[in-house]
Amino acid sequence: MNVYEQSLKAHETWAGKISTEPKCQVKSREDLSLAYTPGVAEPCRKIAENPNDAYKYTQKGNTVAVISDGSAVLGLGNIGALAAMPVMEGKVVLFKSFGNVNAVPICLDTQDTDEIVDTVIRIAPAFGGINLEDISAPRCFEIEKRLNDALDIPVFHDDQHGTAIVVLSGIINGLRLTGKQKENCKVVVNGAGSAGIAITKLLLTYGFTNVTMCDKNGILHKEYEGLNWMQQEMVKVTNLDNKTGSLADALVGADIFVGVSAPGIVSADMVRSMNKDSILFAMANPTPEIMPDIAKEAGARIVGTGRSDFPNQVNNVIAFPGIFKGALEGRASIITEEMKLAAAEAIASLVSDEELCDEFIMPEAFDERVADVVSEAVKSHIHA
Amino acid sequence: MNVYEQSLKAHETWAGKISTEPKCQVKSREDLSLAYTPGVAEPCRKIAENPNDAYKYTQKGNTVAVISDGSAVLGLGNIGALAAMPVMEGKVVLFKSFGNVNAVPICLDTQDTDEIVDTVIRIAPAFGGINLEDISAPRCFEIEKRLNDALDIPVFHDDQHGTAIVVLSGIINGLRLTGKQKENCKVVVNGAGSAGIAITKLLLTYGFTNVTMCDKNGILHKEYEGLNWMQQEMVKVTNLDNKTGSLADALVGADIFVGVSAPGIVSADMVRSMNKDSILFAMANPTPEIMPDIAKEAGARIVGTGRSDFPNQVNNVIAFPGIFKGALEGRASIITEEMKLAAAEAIASLVSDEELCDEFIMPEAFDERVADVVSEAVKSHIHA
Repeated sequence: MNVYEQSLKAHETWAGKISTEPKCQVKSREDLSLAYTPGVAEPCRKIAENPNDAYKYTQKGNTVAVISDGSAVLGLGNIGALAAMPVMEGKVVLFKSFGNVNAVPICLDTQDTDEIVDTVIRIAPAFGGINLEDISAPRCFEIEKRLNDALDIPVFHDDQHGTAIVVLSGIINGLRLTGKQKENCKVVVNGAGSAGIAITKLLLTYGFTNVTMCDKNGILHKEYEGLNWMQQEMVKVTNLDNKTGSLADALVGADIFVGVSAPGIVSADMVRSMNKDSILFAMANPTPEIMPDIAKEAGARIVGTGRSDFPNQVNNVIAFPGIFKGALEGRASIITEEMKLAAAEAIASLVSDEELCDEFIMPEAFDERVADVVSEAVKSHIHA
Repeated sequence: MNVYEQSLKAHETWAGKISTEPKCQVKSREDLSLAYTPGVAEPCRKIAENPNDAYKYTQKGNTVAVISDGSAVLGLGNIGALAAMPVMEGKVVLFKSFGNVNAVPICLDTQDTDEIVDTVIRIAPAFGGINLEDISAPRCFEIEKRLNDALDIPVFHDDQHGTAIVVLSGIINGLRLTGKQKENCKVVVNGAGSAGIAITKLLLTYGFTNVTMCDKNGILHKEYEGLNWMQQEMVKVTNLDNKTGSLADALVGADIFVGVSAPGIVSADMVRSMNKDSILFAMANPTPEIMPDIAKEAGARIVGTGRSDFPNQVNNVIAFPGIFKGALEGRASIITEEMKLAAAEAIASLVSDEELCDEFIMPEAFDERVADVVSEAVKSHIHA
């Protein structure tokens, strides 16, 4: 059996990957009177008097809603709410297993932006944070922004920011290894959807100044037709020389390539045209933009992919569990850019000088230190 | 410490009464590839092809949403979504502990009927059933009906139907004990909110023909002013002689009293005016409409209350876990009147002829047979 057949069989055995488990017993009348009526009236009264007490007496302080509309699921595209459930349940398993954060999968039977925003606002009271997942661009940008404006709990679209944080952590260590300076690096991001845009934004926030975005038709520039509103914002702050051309044109003299795009679209010749000590993140799944061995032969120094069977796997699981753990423990009302940068630096710092090498620029997904280190980094940047 | 202080302290220790627990390990790359990417794509694809496969590969087949808007919480009234959370978490604990059904508490930050209906429809894909809780009348009737019409999963307002089923089970055994015939019984239901109306409806469905409803101003009749739309429906099928008067007037010659109303409003004299072998359910909480000892002295034969420290406790926990367990296992799309009657009869049947007496007409809340017996009764009435 291949991995898909095995997974299908396992899913049938699990019949749901999560279980709701009581923390309290109800085996006697006394138990019932404390966990339920009449005793439960007292925490209700306290919360009615002081809403903040919900963090003290309910699940709110340690529970995240994992919310999708099924519009952009993994490599599957727009498969809808119901079919997205296995992914959301999986995410919930990761939240608990890696960050000890309770989570609840919610798949929304609507893909209308206004309806999604309204619905999430209405179900928010039970939760301490909202993790948006697999929502297509550019709707995801508006949905996240409107929810963050409306709610006093953090709203975080992991496909954007989780990916961006992990990529930045890899790039930080790439600079450590190569001695390149962020101010002098030429960066090319290929893919102008949710992840590509979030990565570009975070790189700019971190201090990169020369970033060019491409999509399947080439370099994004001010006269490029058909850009969505967010891409139009991006061409104001990227590709400052307003160059035009292909991805190949963009890569000439580049130091860093970040691909969240399509299999095999980077050739060995394109890598050869890049600067010395080039750094590539080729994250198309399951087949990268360029295979690591080909990129290396063509002169790349560091190559990361989305795959666990190659070195330097970019895996969001080293970011989102710790980010929400920290945000919940510190009762953050929003995940700021500062927190994202701190998380990326914390992840990068887990690779010691002794360990750091071209084939090891990021901690492993199963490194048990990661969630706590990320969580502390996030917490230290929460302002009361 | 009294029960309220104890409960508050316990809630602070629990900090949320439920935990999300993975059913699958993610301790290795292989684990991850089955529970999450890339393997998870396969159940997603299957569900996209055949929506019914969600019952096979996700939590849908064994997970209920417990949904409230916080508008009518226990004896606390309209305390809002956030303050209702401890009750909903408690309900979730009961679902799992008594019925082995997973449940998720969802408190809605709106009390608008249209918004509640829209929101529940949108979050329904993850769930196999909807348990509505603590939603005020008459909104609860419309919300439940519209959701049942719109969704292909069962929607059940426990404050109505759970209570009605348990009361009916007690009445069935009351008839068994007293030899009264339902066709000849005069029944008075005091309280014309969600529970009182649901009880009345279920008694009529069961075959009682002479039922009179009262509220705090007396007997409901066709010229009674200020009735809501559902109460107007009820006066068409109750009090067929269209009598007017007080609760005391209604009780003269009555066989059965069901109170879901207010403490102490039934006097010993009123009980004396009832028929021989009268049956009373005085369920106002924590102080009943009449205390059992006073009712007994005044001639009542059987008295039930909502309290665990008196005999014959009417406790919804003997109904709802088994009802949803059966509905989910049988994949019911709705909980029909037939299923409710079957559940009540199944509960009543658990009290053997040997056990049955004036002080024991209903199984104990902790009787471990109940959920399965109720579940089987419900399942046997699901039509494919």
